[in-house]
Amino acid sequence: MAMSSTGRSGRRRGETQTRDAIAFAARAAFADVGYDRATMRSIAAAAGVDPALIVHFFGSKEGLFREVTALPPEMGAAMAGLADGPRQEVGLRFAQAVVGMLENPATRPVILARLRSAASHPEAAALVRELVSRDLGLLTSSLTDDRPEARAVLAGTQVVGLAFVRYVVRVEPLASMDAAAVVDVLAPTFQRILVGPLTD
Amino acid sequence: MAMSSTGRSGRRRGETQTRDAIAFAARAAFADVGYDRATMRSIAAAAGVDPALIVHFFGSKEGLFREVTALPPEMGAAMAGLADGPRQEVGLRFAQAVVGMLENPATRPVILARLRSAASHPEAAALVRELVSRDLGLLTSSLTDDRPEARAVLAGTQVVGLAFVRYVVRVEPLASMDAAAVVDVLAPTFQRILVGPLTD
Repeated sequence: MAMSSTGRSGRRRGETQTRDAIAFAARAAFADVGYDRATMRSIAAAAGVDPALIVHFFGSKEGLFREVTALPPEMGAAMAGLADGPRQEVGLRFAQAVVGMLENPATRPVILARLRSAASHPEAAALVRELVSRDLGLLTSSLTDDRPEARAVLAGTQVVGLAFVRYVVRVEPLASMDAAAVVDVLAPTFQRILVGPLTD
Repeated sequence: MAMSSTGRSGRRRGETQTRDAIAFAARAAFADVGYDRATMRSIAAAAGVDPALIVHFFGSKEGLFREVTALPPEMGAAMAGLADGPRQEVGLRFAQAVVGMLENPATRPVILARLRSAASHPEAAALVRELVSRDLGLLTSSLTDDRPEARAVLAGTQVVGLAFVRYVVRVEPLASMDAAAVVDVLAPTFQRILVGPLTD
């Protein structure tokens, strides 16, 4: 059900609105079906624009993907900021931040888009590596000198596993669990991974 | 570089050998690039057979996928068997079993094929749900009456995260870590998830 760049209201949309509509549709498509199945044609149809406009605004599907799955630059700082506060509750703060991002309709599609696409698309895989090594590394290296890189990637495995099992594959009872309950069961795992003894 | 069903040796391969060659090539392709990108044509080429033979033996791509990503039926029993032995070491035994399956060249492709494909393919997603709920559930329900379903799926998140981050996306230092070291850092997490207090 493709529409022209003249929107539902009948008024011609401005450049910014058209660009935003494409970005919104693309993010949802990458999050729902991954990079390969999200075609330029289907994204254009969902945004109600001609596919040529995607190339006009974003250059290519690759450029579109990179732009709409970019995380806010302040996220790294927010991660590092979790080190502030009682050390015995850093696992809880981290669990709250992670579940918060995954429950937030603005950030969830970004994370799921990267994750779904990473399985088959090298560019998306690189973005997942960056997220885990750089952003989580900012937190662990401000918490401890004891193997911060290993702790960052271990925390990353638990974040990725949560996102995949709760939101992509949707295994019960985790898929329907309250966000607060998810935070409660994950906090002790993160607490040990971030600042506890890594091995017995 | 497709070959006919006459193998490299020049002798015509038997039905079983041809079927096995297709299954082997398909499992590797699904594990490497996921369901969507693993085409019948590329699988046939890798197996050195005509694509029509895949349909002859397996009916469809769907049937091929289901058959080559089937896990040995004894796996569920093996999972439940991990409950035997000292309770304070069940996390260690589980970590050894999981890392063992992921390091084993016979079982790793099966798990990665399901995981890579689950991101975009509903049938593969169903198989991941089955693996987590049924097979892990056999273990947790023989260990405890305290929320065994939640424990199974939580253990599943850590298994899925490990497989994805270490073997699919390959984030360092986890990707290059010794299998024994991976077991050591995961054992305490599994110990708490399987038989410890779920929340603080």
